[in-house]
Amino acid sequence: MNGLYDVAAIGNAIVDVIAPAGEEFLVAEGLAKGAMTLIDEQRAADLYDRMAPGIEASGGSAGNTVAGVASLGGRSAYIGKVADDAMGGIFTHDIRAIGAHFTTPPLASGPATARCLINVTPDGQRTMSTYLGACVELTAADVEPEIIESAKIVYLEGYLFDPEEARRAFAKAAGLARGAGRKIALSLSDAFVVERHRHALLAFIDTQVDILFANESEMAALFETANWAAAAREIRGRVDIAAITRSEAGSLVLTPETEHIINAAPGAKVVDTTGAGDQYAAGFLYGLANGRPLDVCGKLGSLAAAEVIGHYGPRPETSLAELARAGGLEAA
Amino acid sequence: MNGLYDVAAIGNAIVDVIAPAGEEFLVAEGLAKGAMTLIDEQRAADLYDRMAPGIEASGGSAGNTVAGVASLGGRSAYIGKVADDAMGGIFTHDIRAIGAHFTTPPLASGPATARCLINVTPDGQRTMSTYLGACVELTAADVEPEIIESAKIVYLEGYLFDPEEARRAFAKAAGLARGAGRKIALSLSDAFVVERHRHALLAFIDTQVDILFANESEMAALFETANWAAAAREIRGRVDIAAITRSEAGSLVLTPETEHIINAAPGAKVVDTTGAGDQYAAGFLYGLANGRPLDVCGKLGSLAAAEVIGHYGPRPETSLAELARAGGLEAA
Repeated sequence: MNGLYDVAAIGNAIVDVIAPAGEEFLVAEGLAKGAMTLIDEQRAADLYDRMAPGIEASGGSAGNTVAGVASLGGRSAYIGKVADDAMGGIFTHDIRAIGAHFTTPPLASGPATARCLINVTPDGQRTMSTYLGACVELTAADVEPEIIESAKIVYLEGYLFDPEEARRAFAKAAGLARGAGRKIALSLSDAFVVERHRHALLAFIDTQVDILFANESEMAALFETANWAAAAREIRGRVDIAAITRSEAGSLVLTPETEHIINAAPGAKVVDTTGAGDQYAAGFLYGLANGRPLDVCGKLGSLAAAEVIGHYGPRPETSLAELARAGGLEAA
Repeated sequence: MNGLYDVAAIGNAIVDVIAPAGEEFLVAEGLAKGAMTLIDEQRAADLYDRMAPGIEASGGSAGNTVAGVASLGGRSAYIGKVADDAMGGIFTHDIRAIGAHFTTPPLASGPATARCLINVTPDGQRTMSTYLGACVELTAADVEPEIIESAKIVYLEGYLFDPEEARRAFAKAAGLARGAGRKIALSLSDAFVVERHRHALLAFIDTQVDILFANESEMAALFETANWAAAAREIRGRVDIAAITRSEAGSLVLTPETEHIINAAPGAKVVDTTGAGDQYAAGFLYGLANGRPLDVCGKLGSLAAAEVIGHYGPRPETSLAELARAGGLEAA
């Protein structure tokens, strides 16, 4: 594949607020463990008031993936909407500082930059409450054709199905990518997102998606079954490649003809699972854009995910390129 | 000692921006490794532009110490000035969320909340560039007598000698503490701070300070000698207790009559030394306020410092009270 960028991604541009929490806090706040819930500004302020002290870090699913691709040495671009405020400045700095192209104009007035309040329980699981803020103002006009058309793979996060305007941006990006003969990858993002938008997501997958990322519960939600393995059979033939992540059980990479079982990377102590799926996608897409075989793509995904769960924060703290070299997975 | 608070602290209320950096970055930017340099708003913006992606976390030397005291189960209060902006909101949330009393009114208009740009080299050393912003508006009026008078120990950071107004707050707090028969502790903060304010600091130490925290280079700067051990002899008799921190060599606790050599706590991998001195002070002051012998105070300091150097960020991520219990150092 040729292209100026290995991956161009569109996503909700979000700053994470990450704090430890007990299981009883999730119960008291009525939070669905491990899921992402949308909240309004008032609820965000109230919930933040009661959360433990935390750290702030640039996040957003596709933004995290772009950062991972860059950390592996890949070229990446990002499209997403921040406000012209302190948090927007942090998001912009971080994604540009890692070397990604990011030129979406910030929102001059209106809602603040999106925040995701992430409560991390002692088992490392993260429970997310997102105030979308400026994200809901991402429009099709923000999708720059020259970025989409010059990327080997265009990556879209399922979370974009929540803000209505962003779905039009989604459609435009897919059309441009298709028109330029580019590959389209989609992450299902969250089982609740799948439940909210199942019909639209399935139609989009069937008509536009080449590469699908999902975990077991998202696959089960997509095909309305409790059996993720049955859901996995359903997806074969609908997309060229499906990569199904299974936490500590690793991942399963399916094509219509082949099946690769990938182990999770060993050794990492689980501190905070925030960003694990995003980094898996980063490793996988970097491998794919650089012509590596599917099993190596999966292993690069495992390696990137293992790095990010070992510390607080959704993006790599150490060079994934160096980790890949140390693990014998450097790009050919 | 009796008091509503174990420790009441006054300091520059700062949000840290912490990012990895190579040694060559420090050279290119003309940054003095391991030191704290004051910068203006424009320089802060320029330097941030060139820094790597990072995380944001509440900081400020005395704020970190207060957070450490709270993590050990102690009662603490904080006085410091933030602006009424997003970063000020983060600082306020974090210090209250850990259980510290903090009621200093934020600055309604004027400079933004202070930021400290921290570049962490691969050896874990941190190099700090601080834009003081709203901190310079901390005034004597912000020093609430009922807080100072009800704390067993009043803790002041040497950094407060930089903003002129804050020095008056410093003097008021010392006077109130002395009047109420409270102990006064001072941290020298930074060798450059000592060089900028040597005369004033020495006069303050001789007349007001009971407990002094310093590292080797700050001690050397205070007494204008290259020999920190000679400087240590100089300090005996000037204060009741001097705790001199020596990085991996541990610390030395001196009184006019006694000397305790304290080892560094073993085991911690050094990721980021930001906050190490602040947490040493937290452990030491918590011990002192709760009647522990001086060697145990030093060990509590070592334990708290070891926790914070094992991760990015200047405040404890795990309960220091639990670590102290596990290490046989729980309060009597």
